[in-house]
Order: sequence, then structure tokens, then C-alpha cells
Amino acid sequence: MFAVDPVNHHIDEQIQHKINQKTKPLGALGLLETLAKQIAQVQFAKQFNGRHKLSIKEPAMLVFAGDHGIAAHGVSIAPSEVTKQMVANFASGGAAINVFCRQMGLNLEVIDCGMLTPSDHPSVTNHRLGSGTQAIHQKPAMSLLSVKDGFSYANEVVQRHYDSGCNLIALGEMGIGNTSSAAAVMAALLKLDIKDCVGRGTGINDEAFALKTELLTVAMNLHRNNLNDPVNVLACLGGFEIVQMTGAILAAAEKRMLVVIDGFIATAAALAAVALHPDARGYLIFAHQSDEQGHIKMLQALDAQPILSLGLRLGEGTGAALALPIIQSAVNFYNDMASFENAGVSNVV
Amino acid sequence: MFAVDPVNHHIDEQIQHKINQKTKPLGALGLLETLAKQIAQVQFAKQFNGRHKLSIKEPAMLVFAGDHGIAAHGVSIAPSEVTKQMVANFASGGAAINVFCRQMGLNLEVIDCGMLTPSDHPSVTNHRLGSGTQAIHQKPAMSLLSVKDGFSYANEVVQRHYDSGCNLIALGEMGIGNTSSAAAVMAALLKLDIKDCVGRGTGINDEAFALKTELLTVAMNLHRNNLNDPVNVLACLGGFEIVQMTGAILAAAEKRMLVVIDGFIATAAALAAVALHPDARGYLIFAHQSDEQGHIKMLQALDAQPILSLGLRLGEGTGAALALPIIQSAVNFYNDMASFENAGVSNVV
Repeated sequence: MFAVDPVNHHIDEQIQHKINQKTKPLGALGLLETLAKQIAQVQFAKQFNGRHKLSIKEPAMLVFAGDHGIAAHGVSIAPSEVTKQMVANFASGGAAINVFCRQMGLNLEVIDCGMLTPSDHPSVTNHRLGSGTQAIHQKPAMSLLSVKDGFSYANEVVQRHYDSGCNLIALGEMGIGNTSSAAAVMAALLKLDIKDCVGRGTGINDEAFALKTELLTVAMNLHRNNLNDPVNVLACLGGFEIVQMTGAILAAAEKRMLVVIDGFIATAAALAAVALHPDARGYLIFAHQSDEQGHIKMLQALDAQPILSLGLRLGEGTGAALALPIIQSAVNFYNDMASFENAGVSNVV
Repeated sequence: MFAVDPVNHHIDEQIQHKINQKTKPLGALGLLETLAKQIAQVQFAKQFNGRHKLSIKEPAMLVFAGDHGIAAHGVSIAPSEVTKQMVANFASGGAAINVFCRQMGLNLEVIDCGMLTPSDHPSVTNHRLGSGTQAIHQKPAMSLLSVKDGFSYANEVVQRHYDSGCNLIALGEMGIGNTSSAAAVMAALLKLDIKDCVGRGTGINDEAFALKTELLTVAMNLHRNNLNDPVNVLACLGGFEIVQMTGAILAAAEKRMLVVIDGFIATAAALAAVALHPDARGYLIFAHQSDEQGHIKMLQALDAQPILSLGLRLGEGTGAALALPIIQSAVNFYNDMASFENAGVSNVV
């Protein structure tokens, strides 16, 4: 459904040379140099010209919300109703993600991908695939058609931002129960035991953790013969918001936009997107290392080094929003730092 | 010379309660919550009122530059002349720290604390304590009077920013050879073997690293009977920029300003400041975990968890500048996030 081109690796040497001429010891800007190279590979699609600038334009935070059938079975600290309450909080500007989007200049769009009941707020995009998924330890989460519809919806959102001049999207989510779905998707795609993927989400106790692990073990067993490709994995184990995040990643990669991935849930979507189109990986920037035990394994599988590690476990895209200034700094040093020659500094390295 | 009051711990419970009422699971904003609490302890000096706001006003980046006698003996990748060249680069706006200060809205002041030859740029503050320090493996770096003068100079700079409405300073530095001095100060203050403190700075090879270790071993031995208090440690082993950074920390703490500490060198100054006035610790925010091997040990000694770990090894205050948006985010979530009650979200935790 999506056509994803690889990022431009033909210019790697020229980009590295330009970075090395900046007035600093070789490699002294660490991860910022890696980011600048990646952004150049995404944005300098054709040929390289030393005067070309990197840019972040009209960055958008897309927060995908959905409910999960499994949440009714005691795997989370909160009931599914909280998804809708928090979406209302997003719509009225009071949540953490609102505060950080205002600070960072991110255009926030909240998408109802299928909460238990629809959002009452006109500013929330209605892209509902149902009223919560089926409980994945009992049935497939959704139909294959829902996955396809979710990809179409996501493409529509990304296209709209692209048409407004946006070249970077960040992905966040809200969905009580969605660490369960993300852990299951992760286990299926990385072929890991579910015990190595499941975590405590926003903070469940030992009892709820044992139950979560048990139900997810049942889910993995129930669907085991139907997890042979990423679309089936999403249909069996995914969430409406995870499906639309996967679609958004692929739509953005198709349009050569940067995609900033938040935490555990968004990384599960990234895993699915890269499983479908390996070339999508080049467009992804990983924002935050979550404490959720499975996250580091997904990041390793994606060969990703996240920008931040602040002990966040909130979702909503908060880690991605907080990482944006660092990404902007990578752009800025590349564009604006003097070279040794221009600054009259001895290049001793 | 400085009178430093402790930060206000009497309000800890009230601040924690206010943070816990925000629409998020308990503790879900991780390090941002720790930062918000600390900023409240600094800024709410008298009593607590739930409507009081946190703030960052007129934040300033103070970059202290100085040269080091030991640099003439092969301990660095660059000759001392590069200090002045880089200060010229700061003055004309082309260095990494300029780029990041512009992005973050930091007012940049560059202070010549004693380079080999004076800066030619009128915008650079002339607070010279000499033309580079003595080589510390041969003599004390400077006199006790120079340390005292350095503290006075620093107080003058901080007072000026304070008078302009500034309530946060960030500390950066430039000085070829200053990782040698910082490692020696660290070894003396933490009573560690110099081998556990010395590192590769901006990237010296094995040979230079062996030489650096050897010369610093000589230095520690030479001054061993004169390292019984922090001022003597600074006089024997310090740098002009390290002394003025130490003074700036104490001056800022005296005025109840926040101080953002950059990397290895600034942390050595923080160690000296806290050794002189333990209550200064409460005003310090640590920005970046350096790869320099001694840094993590200093941070542990100061019970500090740095905000970022981006593999930077540039100094100039770059890590501190990059951390500022995260500090601002801590301020913003505290001020602007809705409470469970106001947002109509079930408080399930």
C-alpha cells in the first residue's frame, strides 16, 4: 500500500566531511552528529550541495487514541473510560502533551482511532475503526480490513500535514491497555517469549502483572498459527491506535518526512512498519528510552539509540515532544556552525 | 566570602502533592518531576502557595576561558592558542555554543579568565587572573590571592545578570588542557587516585594519555601536603576558568539562582563549590553525562543524575544549553498541567 524509498546513503561521505569541518573536535557533538547525518540522508534526496540547509518545518504531534478489549480484564491501573477522559483533557489543552507541544511549537492533532465511545470534542479527528478492539486473549483484535482502513486513515492525516508544509511528524498515543497489545505485537514480530516483552505499563502491582502475563500468554497461544506476517500480527494482537501509527510511519516515510517515535507503544508500531518496509527505518528518530522492560529489546532490534532517557512512562508522545529541541539542535549546528577555515581556528584533529 | 542558605525543604510534601494531582500516573514524568521539585525548593524560599508559579527568567550562559601551563607539555590534542581562537569564534557567533544559545534563548557572556594572551574582542569580559596558569606538575597553578580575585570577578558577573532579572545561569568553559586540571581537582577533593580521574579529554591518543597520567601523578605528589582545603586545591591544581566557575556557582547560590552544570570541567568546579558550601548543592542542576571516565564518579559523589547523555565531549556549555528546554518543560508541566479534578479525569492511582 505504501512505496517507501531508502534514504540517500550516497552522500554519507560528503555530509561527514561537512560535519568534520565544523569548529569542534571530531565527533565531539556525539549523537547530534548522528542525527544531522540521518536528517541529511532523508532531506537531501537528490544530490548534495554544501550550501543546502537542513530544516524542521511545521512539525506535528499526532496522538492516536484507542481502547483495548483486554483492558476490561484487569491488566491496567485504569479503566478504559480514562482513555476518553484523557482525550478530553488533550482537547482542552490540560495534559502534559499539550504543555510540551505549546513549548516546542508542535502542531497537535488528536485522533480517535476507536475509543469505547466516540470523543465529544469537534477538534478530535474521527477515524474510528470500532468501539475498542476485541480482547486479544479471546479473539483477534480486529479484522484485516480494519488494518487496511487504519492505514488509509493514517495516510489521510499525514497527507494533510504534508500538504501544509510539514516535514516531521512525531507519534504519541493514549489507550488504556495498550502496553499489553504492544508487548504482544513485539513478541510476535521479534519471535520472543511474551515474558520477555511484557512490563508494568504505567505502574501495575505484582498481581496485575502476573495476570497481564498470563492473559498475554493465552493470546500468543491462541493466535500462534496466524502471526506469519506483520498485517496479520496487527489484526490479531494490535490496537486501533497501533495500526494507525504503523500506517502513519509508512505514509510519512513514503513522503520522505522524518518520524519521531515516542516510547514503548510507538516503537511497537515502528517495528511493524519496518517489518513491512525495511527502508522505513531510515526515516525514524527514536526519542526516549522507556523503563518498560521490552523497550530496550525493540530498540536493539531496530538498531536505535534513543535521544533521551528521563524515566518517563506516560506516553501521549511526551518523550517525542521533549526530544524535538535536540533534533532541532542537530539541524542548527549543521546549518549554522562555522568551519575551521571560516572561523580562523586551527584544525588540529 | 559567600553566604549560601539551604534550599527550602519545608515545602517538599506540598510540592509533591501538587505534582501528584496532575493528570498523569504517579511519577510518570520521571526526572521532570525531580527537577520541578528542586526548582520549587530554590524559588519558593518563603512559604508555599499553590498558585505560585515556577519560572526561568533571562537565563544566561557564562563561558569561562583560561589557559593552562600544563598544556605546553603534550597533554592535549591542541595547543593553547586554540583557546583564544575559539573565544574569537564565540565572539563572532560561529561556535556550537552560539548556535545553541540562540536556539534556547540563552544570553551568552564569554569571560577571559586568563588566556595566554588577552582576547581582542570587546564583547569578551576581561577578568584575567594571568596569562595562563603555571604548569601544575612543576608549581602551584596560581596564588591564593588569584583564587580570591577569581571569586570576586565571578561574583561581579553573576550579580550583573541577577540585576538584569536573571534567575538561572548555565556554566560552560573553554581552555586547552583543562581536563587535566579538572581531573587533578577531582582527585584531590574526592581523595581518589589520579588514575581513576584522568581521561582522554577531547580525544588524545594512548601516548598522550600515558603522558597526561604521568604528569598529573607528578602534580598530585608535588602538592600532596597542600591539598587540605578546597581553596588550596584550586590554587595548586585549578585553572583560572575553574576558579571563576566555582565562584559563579557560590555567587548564584547566594542569590538563590539555579545553576546548570555542563560536563566534566564544570562538575569539578561544582565539586569545589559544594566542598566549600555544602548547601550550594541544592541549587545545581546537572545537564550532561560526559564520556570522560571521571565524570560519573563526580556525579555520584554529588548524588547527581544528569538530564542528558548524548556523547558530547565539546565543553563550551553545550550540554547545559541543550538541557535547558527540558528544565523549561519541568517548569511548564508544574505551572500549566491540569489537575485530575479540573480536567474531570478519574484519579485511579
